[in-house]
Amino acid sequence: MNLLTFDSGIGGLTALVPILRAYPGSTVTYLGDLAHLPYGTKSPERIRKLCSAAADWLLAAERRRGPSFDWCVVACNTASAHALDVFRSAAIGSGMKVSGVIEPGCRKAIAAKRPRTLILATGATVASQAYPRSLATLGYGGIVEQRACPLFVPLVEDDLLEGPEVAGIARRYLEGWIRPGDAAVLGCTHYPLLLPQLRELYPDVEWIDAGHSLLEMDHAPELEKPDASKPSRLQLFVTDDVASAERARRFLARMGLEDVVLDVKAIPPLV
Amino acid sequence: MNLLTFDSGIGGLTALVPILRAYPGSTVTYLGDLAHLPYGTKSPERIRKLCSAAADWLLAAERRRGPSFDWCVVACNTASAHALDVFRSAAIGSGMKVSGVIEPGCRKAIAAKRPRTLILATGATVASQAYPRSLATLGYGGIVEQRACPLFVPLVEDDLLEGPEVAGIARRYLEGWIRPGDAAVLGCTHYPLLLPQLRELYPDVEWIDAGHSLLEMDHAPELEKPDASKPSRLQLFVTDDVASAERARRFLARMGLEDVVLDVKAIPPLV
Repeated sequence: MNLLTFDSGIGGLTALVPILRAYPGSTVTYLGDLAHLPYGTKSPERIRKLCSAAADWLLAAERRRGPSFDWCVVACNTASAHALDVFRSAAIGSGMKVSGVIEPGCRKAIAAKRPRTLILATGATVASQAYPRSLATLGYGGIVEQRACPLFVPLVEDDLLEGPEVAGIARRYLEGWIRPGDAAVLGCTHYPLLLPQLRELYPDVEWIDAGHSLLEMDHAPELEKPDASKPSRLQLFVTDDVASAERARRFLARMGLEDVVLDVKAIPPLV
Repeated sequence: MNLLTFDSGIGGLTALVPILRAYPGSTVTYLGDLAHLPYGTKSPERIRKLCSAAADWLLAAERRRGPSFDWCVVACNTASAHALDVFRSAAIGSGMKVSGVIEPGCRKAIAAKRPRTLILATGATVASQAYPRSLATLGYGGIVEQRACPLFVPLVEDDLLEGPEVAGIARRYLEGWIRPGDAAVLGCTHYPLLLPQLRELYPDVEWIDAGHSLLEMDHAPELEKPDASKPSRLQLFVTDDVASAERARRFLARMGLEDVVLDVKAIPPLV
């Protein structure tokens, strides 16, 4: 499987984990827009402009390589919420499937058959109403509520994944709102790293990792399996190099993907 | 007093507080580069490029208004650390004094006469070595140590200024390192909002607010006092509008500057 992937940072690697496990020997061309990270605090206009430049760059990469990419994954929830159409427009004519993480997350939430679904996401994703809209389109009849959890991303970025401070901040966002029996969607690529702590605090909630749901919810294109005897290869392009290689390696190791061959290249910011 | 001010966000308002208190009736033209916030996690090259565009824009504002600006304050520690020379070069010929926040912070730290000075700042400011270098240049003979506190900015942005989670995170950065009798420089415009909590945790430390030291350390140009019967005016230009007016008003209120006349205008990103 040859993947094009976009995220504002390297957190989008979490969305690739099930894909790289299911399709060992894959190659991934990944664009991380570190020069403009984070997207979740930006305006819709700014997010769409940045995504437009990213989509053009990724599709140009596709054209350079010939018709060899199978799937374009927009791993960033904020980009999926505000600009999936931008990526899809850019891909017209390429024959490539383009997926965001919102719809698969919603499908998984609906499959959980809970009366209430909570969306935990960035401010920009919450403001976009993309999750409630997608749940409604897919026919979910339960209650949908959303809340921005702005400290979750910096906690993960600072490697603070559990302990009393993380628990305290999670409780501050969720206590009195989340209830046993709820489905709760982790609507940001960073949030799944907090899952052990969140599960410990609220064990009777059905936690749903939107990025992880991509493959499971039958969203992969029909493909022959690549050669599993070869390691997967990840070519990571970053628009600003801030210890990107070290951080990507740490991310991969944390997700049990140490064997992925990583190649990091800094490129100028696209906007 | 007519001020030009630059910060990556609106946190730089903390550096203006003593100036607006000492010079009521001032006017401030403030550029907040929200489209590229935060600077503290970016590479030196990227920071200098963004600062170069900001300096050009501010000086163009100066030229549009005629020779009426007295002082250009680079309120952002990260920008002061990496690119004060960029602002100074842009201001050559304007006759305007250009100040960053690093040197005043260092002067205040030296005045505290402590055997050890700790620098708490963003990753980029720490990496720049601007504080240790400035302390050495100014003749400080004590021990200087630095530490990045990446969660302090998002805590302040999320209005979480005290309580067990903030205390826990502060202890995680400082415990076993900070000692009674130290001077500790808050080397980021956001950090002073955490000062009550930091003082409670470590009361025997001399806490130094770098931005606040600007005026105190005799850095203001010699000027006639403006007309104190008129309110100060703040014209805030932001490169991305994310509830900027509400947030700026909240910031000003928190600092006892409710009477400042605020005018917020969104402009396109400069880079």
